[in-house]
Amino acid sequence: MAVGEASFPAMPAIEGIRLGASMAGIKAAGRRDLVVIELPESTTLAAAFTRNAFCAAPVHVARRHLEAAKPRYLLINTGNANAGTGEQGMLDAEQSCQTLGELAGVAAQSVLPFSTGVIGEPLPVKRLCDALPEALAVLSADGWQTAAEGILTTDTRAKGATTCIEIDGQPVTINGIAKGSGMIKPDMATMLSFVFTDAAIDDARLQVLLRRAVDDSFNCITVDSDTSTNDACTLAATGRGARIDTDEHESRFAAALTEVLVELAQAIIRDAEGATKFVTLEVEGATHRQEALDVAFTVAHSPLVKTALYASDANWGRILAAVGRAPVPDLDVSRIAIDLGEVALVERGGRAASYTEEAGSAVMAESEITIRIHLGRGDTAATVWTSDLSHDYVSINADYRS
Amino acid sequence: MAVGEASFPAMPAIEGIRLGASMAGIKAAGRRDLVVIELPESTTLAAAFTRNAFCAAPVHVARRHLEAAKPRYLLINTGNANAGTGEQGMLDAEQSCQTLGELAGVAAQSVLPFSTGVIGEPLPVKRLCDALPEALAVLSADGWQTAAEGILTTDTRAKGATTCIEIDGQPVTINGIAKGSGMIKPDMATMLSFVFTDAAIDDARLQVLLRRAVDDSFNCITVDSDTSTNDACTLAATGRGARIDTDEHESRFAAALTEVLVELAQAIIRDAEGATKFVTLEVEGATHRQEALDVAFTVAHSPLVKTALYASDANWGRILAAVGRAPVPDLDVSRIAIDLGEVALVERGGRAASYTEEAGSAVMAESEITIRIHLGRGDTAATVWTSDLSHDYVSINADYRS
Repeated sequence: MAVGEASFPAMPAIEGIRLGASMAGIKAAGRRDLVVIELPESTTLAAAFTRNAFCAAPVHVARRHLEAAKPRYLLINTGNANAGTGEQGMLDAEQSCQTLGELAGVAAQSVLPFSTGVIGEPLPVKRLCDALPEALAVLSADGWQTAAEGILTTDTRAKGATTCIEIDGQPVTINGIAKGSGMIKPDMATMLSFVFTDAAIDDARLQVLLRRAVDDSFNCITVDSDTSTNDACTLAATGRGARIDTDEHESRFAAALTEVLVELAQAIIRDAEGATKFVTLEVEGATHRQEALDVAFTVAHSPLVKTALYASDANWGRILAAVGRAPVPDLDVSRIAIDLGEVALVERGGRAASYTEEAGSAVMAESEITIRIHLGRGDTAATVWTSDLSHDYVSINADYRS
Repeated sequence: MAVGEASFPAMPAIEGIRLGASMAGIKAAGRRDLVVIELPESTTLAAAFTRNAFCAAPVHVARRHLEAAKPRYLLINTGNANAGTGEQGMLDAEQSCQTLGELAGVAAQSVLPFSTGVIGEPLPVKRLCDALPEALAVLSADGWQTAAEGILTTDTRAKGATTCIEIDGQPVTINGIAKGSGMIKPDMATMLSFVFTDAAIDDARLQVLLRRAVDDSFNCITVDSDTSTNDACTLAATGRGARIDTDEHESRFAAALTEVLVELAQAIIRDAEGATKFVTLEVEGATHRQEALDVAFTVAHSPLVKTALYASDANWGRILAAVGRAPVPDLDVSRIAIDLGEVALVERGGRAASYTEEAGSAVMAESEITIRIHLGRGDTAATVWTSDLSHDYVSINADYRS
């Protein structure tokens, strides 16, 4: 199941970047589950990784490689997370980088490994390495959709986003792909997302730009409150296009980057496991951003709110009860107002005088719903995107060993 | 659905306490939904209420009445929570106490009101008051099961627990009833629970005893992380039996009280909405109790862990991922061990060498499962009880407006 229609966008080539995929037989026979992405020598790269304490072997190895060398290849497998695999998992991740490095003529440290799939199973590293030559052989500047498909797990759709801005008369392209559908409550990163641009941006600036854009996109989505062990997001800048070196350039690039990341993050929610609703939670009138996020995530994680959304039931008491248990000190409930779409649901902490079940039900029947919560405490706002909790979510996660 | 067999215990009378129920037509026609419990004049009473900021009108009124007068009657309705009902809700709760006070010949402030059911609907106060004479007429010293049945909402079973200890050669009885099945993550109280003893205990001591016992029982259970607006637990001591006035008496009474409250709390989890599993989470080796509770609740609230439990799938990667995202600073995953029943699942942060799928699956196939998590950081432990996440949980909460 997934919310709304979606087709993979036409993504322009970015000079020097080539993408390829092959079948390693890790996820299922007859499915491309191994992706290689080649970066030109000039590339700078920023990365954000999961803050789950049990981070996976490839996360450790990718961090180490990033410190040691300039990245030339991203190596991504699906079907196996190589997480909870101890020392052998680290050796397996290193081995896969070593093999790709030898085949491509670069140092092993120039390869960044990423894995997604079942936690706790040994990585079938021989099968993975055996499929590398084929992935290299098919590298192509227009392999974006192939790569986006190759990294999926329980996702039902490939996710891509692209935008183009002009800097000093030069076009700058940003292309991103992502995967993710369950175990989604990114903490400082996302499931897996790979973003590319032809702009020239130095390392330190690139890292700041990525961090900020991730905070406003992937870090504002949740399916099930479960932060993955393998979350990773990279931003690679090939440096062959316009140079981003003034505040004005930076702010325009940052806006375009956030736009791409928000589109990918929203695509993950639209394709959330079992999702029948795409829900935008806007919390306003908070004293600071974390307070707004705390309220939004408490509502977004409430199984009772999520099942009411699934049932298209305008059960505002559950929203109110979730707001009331959010970790906000001295919450004055008499100042709280809640809107469901354009319908006033709660005013001054109780049901709005103008509210009718008919009006509420009409909004809830939509597949895309906005809930706006006014706290009446300050001037700060935050937005979080989430999905509902359906029978299919339970079926998918009772059947699938992730 | 509910886990295991259960029958309502034979509960002895406590001198001076009488219980009655009648049909007010609030929940459904032909069902007792109004309960009155009479306390003798000598009674001292301690109470714990929800910390949800949106607490219900009866919670406000009960708090106020407790400060103003000695309680003589508990008045409980199901089918309507009288929460999110604003000023009218307060007037309605007061009105119901006023009417009962007039009928029984006591001050309105001697009546404590409690409500559970749908949030946000006006309390049908006239129907409630009209049914009060009948509830008073049937007051009986052995009405325990009738009262326990009369307070249920989505519960499938009446919940009662009783114990008897001897203090200075005198028998002391503790009887408790409770309701709760969903919107269960009590914060400093439970859904609704009413506990009674014939012991003589002064107010201040009684409040401390209740607070400690609640912290080790109702505050250690969760179904769905949703803290109710109406949670309340009272402990009434009639004072007609043995006096609890030495440290030795107090510690023996405290142990007996905790035993009764744990039995009631566990009964709520066994009867959790859609539950097919009763799960005990023991976290050991924490630096302090809150750290152990944080880890236990993070695992207990994980939808992925809960669906794996429902599927009887020993998916230890999900447990490990949940531990890894718990709010514990500097968690050293290499020290973590996890046991599933008597089977070692995780050692030093990875799959235990001795682990086999057969052994893990055999434990998961049981309806009562213990998961023991060793953090290797200190000497403190905590235990939390929870249920699984099933299709029926979704069905119940997609269909029921609570």
